[in-house]
Amino acid sequence: MEKFNTYIEANAERFIEELKEFCRQPSIAAQGIGLEEMSRLVQARLEKLGAEVRLMPVNGGPPVIYAELGKGQRTLLLYNHYDVQPPDPLDLWDSEPFDPQIREGVFYARGVADNKGDLLARLQAIEAYLATQGELPLKIKCFIEGEEEVGSPHLASFAAEHTHLLTADGCLWEGGHKDESGRPTIALGLKGIMYLELRVHGAKSDLHSSLATIVPNPAWRLVWALSTLKDENDNILVDGLMDHVAEPTATEMEMLAAIPFEEEKMRANFGIPHFIRGLTGVEALKKHLYEPTCTICGLKAGYTGEGAKTVLPNTAVVKLDFRLVPNLEPDLVVKLLRQHLDKRGFTDIEVVPISGLHPAKASPDAPIVKAAIAAAQAVYGQRPVVYPLMAGSGPMYPLTQALGIPALAAGVGHAESNLHAPNENIRLEDYFQGIRFVGELIHRFAAG
Amino acid sequence: MEKFNTYIEANAERFIEELKEFCRQPSIAAQGIGLEEMSRLVQARLEKLGAEVRLMPVNGGPPVIYAELGKGQRTLLLYNHYDVQPPDPLDLWDSEPFDPQIREGVFYARGVADNKGDLLARLQAIEAYLATQGELPLKIKCFIEGEEEVGSPHLASFAAEHTHLLTADGCLWEGGHKDESGRPTIALGLKGIMYLELRVHGAKSDLHSSLATIVPNPAWRLVWALSTLKDENDNILVDGLMDHVAEPTATEMEMLAAIPFEEEKMRANFGIPHFIRGLTGVEALKKHLYEPTCTICGLKAGYTGEGAKTVLPNTAVVKLDFRLVPNLEPDLVVKLLRQHLDKRGFTDIEVVPISGLHPAKASPDAPIVKAAIAAAQAVYGQRPVVYPLMAGSGPMYPLTQALGIPALAAGVGHAESNLHAPNENIRLEDYFQGIRFVGELIHRFAAG
Repeated sequence: MEKFNTYIEANAERFIEELKEFCRQPSIAAQGIGLEEMSRLVQARLEKLGAEVRLMPVNGGPPVIYAELGKGQRTLLLYNHYDVQPPDPLDLWDSEPFDPQIREGVFYARGVADNKGDLLARLQAIEAYLATQGELPLKIKCFIEGEEEVGSPHLASFAAEHTHLLTADGCLWEGGHKDESGRPTIALGLKGIMYLELRVHGAKSDLHSSLATIVPNPAWRLVWALSTLKDENDNILVDGLMDHVAEPTATEMEMLAAIPFEEEKMRANFGIPHFIRGLTGVEALKKHLYEPTCTICGLKAGYTGEGAKTVLPNTAVVKLDFRLVPNLEPDLVVKLLRQHLDKRGFTDIEVVPISGLHPAKASPDAPIVKAAIAAAQAVYGQRPVVYPLMAGSGPMYPLTQALGIPALAAGVGHAESNLHAPNENIRLEDYFQGIRFVGELIHRFAAG
Repeated sequence: MEKFNTYIEANAERFIEELKEFCRQPSIAAQGIGLEEMSRLVQARLEKLGAEVRLMPVNGGPPVIYAELGKGQRTLLLYNHYDVQPPDPLDLWDSEPFDPQIREGVFYARGVADNKGDLLARLQAIEAYLATQGELPLKIKCFIEGEEEVGSPHLASFAAEHTHLLTADGCLWEGGHKDESGRPTIALGLKGIMYLELRVHGAKSDLHSSLATIVPNPAWRLVWALSTLKDENDNILVDGLMDHVAEPTATEMEMLAAIPFEEEKMRANFGIPHFIRGLTGVEALKKHLYEPTCTICGLKAGYTGEGAKTVLPNTAVVKLDFRLVPNLEPDLVVKLLRQHLDKRGFTDIEVVPISGLHPAKASPDAPIVKAAIAAAQAVYGQRPVVYPLMAGSGPMYPLTQALGIPALAAGVGHAESNLHAPNENIRLEDYFQGIRFVGELIHRFAAG
């Protein structure tokens, strides 16, 4: 791979220029801005690699970009997205979000870390591979969507209709990042999520609070129902839910123990004296990655302005977010929650599903994982930190695990890349290492 | 009192014109509109009775109007207010709120039922008394404030500084109304109130909800704390609070039993199948009037807009309103609640008092009560419905009970007077009966 690396160095300036071009083009899914233009830029870049590119219409959404390159025994699926988060709040940016700037080796622009840097790094790695090795040693499928930042609402059904485009032996997911201490990380899965509302209704309209003696209050009813869902020690009490949660295996516990977990720094950043249950070290990390959550994301009832208003509310709503570890599925959570509430007489409480995603997890023994670990070792000169699972969620399941494809996440970000925030950035050093990593991964995954 | 009644009939048109004049003048305490002008109108009307009127400055509020008239062994205190609620929502009014209109014997205007009708009816009764009986048989003290509709924030301290102005043998409170079936009502007291917030804080800022595994969630903490305050059967569980609540006496239970309680109509109006605990009849009424409340008036945490936002909130707030029966006082509630929370480890939860009012209750044996019942019997031709206590709250305590003055509420409204609502109104028939009632009360209270 020496020629490969030399090629990257020789083309570094152009590669950066290309990244600037990508980042100059706004492509904000939430606001429907620039998605068409951005999809054309990505299409053109793929065509420069000699790929035949399809812009596939998605019912109600921006097109999926699909391309195949190379051939070989193995197939590698690359999943990325060309849309970005809105740039607000604008006044907190040190330079314009869509006017890419490099300061002291750091490249600032909206979308550069999430996910245009990784998207382009992968295409540039393919270019370098082709230029220096002649041809690809495996088949690469690029699957690039345009509405990841609004929750990929059409992705699952699109994937189910186009499984033949996705079939692969392994998937390199979206992106990834170095950790606080500069160690490369690889993540083998994502939690799922079930986001829903509980809604409680009382009288026809809000009433004077003096009537609270005899007229039921939906806000109290919501409190009583919620208090049956989780105890003060953060144990989820929804009947049967925890029965579906598996303890990490011995191998997974070893992986957890190998993860550097900078907990004091975390607590200081968050401004909290302790983690839940006073957990520390690997036990905190185990809870973080291997326990589901039942989180109140929002609560609303009655009067929420300044001062006093003596009102008996007629509606109360909670937004709950269940993060799902493997074996927990969105529909199952809704079903168990409904049964749990009914059993306790809360048959009047509406359960309103908002959105759901399955968890996804690759085996550490999958060839793509072994290849990625070896590739990282070669590029970064150290064993990567391997997360068996990430605490966040994403549409990994329908694109990969549902089709039997092991997926892992690795990429060009770092711990302070400010994803979804002002001054989003990547470090140029990480970017070029990321290109080299993709080259190494292609090479090693094809080989074994 | 025959001449008295004849005088009222003879002057009916002028009396209505005066009421229109009062109602044409906006006097909105919440918006600081027209209070100065209104206080001058009231002053002028009192001066027409020959009273020496004082406009007493209130630190930070509109003036209190104070006047004394007549002399005798007994002193009657009249409490009223010259401010009104804002007229919004304007589009639901059938005529302009400050352009009084009479339609089919009903007088529509903002403030006519709360409280300008009662205020003026009392002054017109005094005029009729003086004109027909020569002089008043007792001393009358008029105490008229201008910020009742914003919670009388300066009243308690003003009253404490001016107790000599308030000293009296009985007080006729603000106003009152006929019930759904047209029966006159007299109320002998008001519940107190303690309105406060509980505030819970978590991390420095809102965080991504995937961190809910290890970072404490103040919204959950609030739910757990709230669930210790009241059970699903609506029993208040705050340690020691219910120990201060007295059962109604046998006399009071008799009064309750004599109150016509149109519960089916109430439930239909509110759109609820049952009252709390499935209570009916006198048991429901007993709970309504003799139990304190602990009401969630408002709940707020995290994201409360449409759809999903996966946020771990860093603050949660509840607004709680405790309605206080006799022996429960605002400060006591705050103290008991603080102790209750501390005992359960919720020392981090802030208790923020917003406003408080003592309960007040007159004895049914007080001479003013006996005189009022007899006066009502004389005017309305039936025994009035006597409420030993009302479920609502008001600043009765500092003006009356704190000074040992029994107070009762009676007035010119009816069950559909739309207090604080569009199309506020009184019936002219009730208005003139109300003037006669005040005349009878003066007469009878002075006599016995």
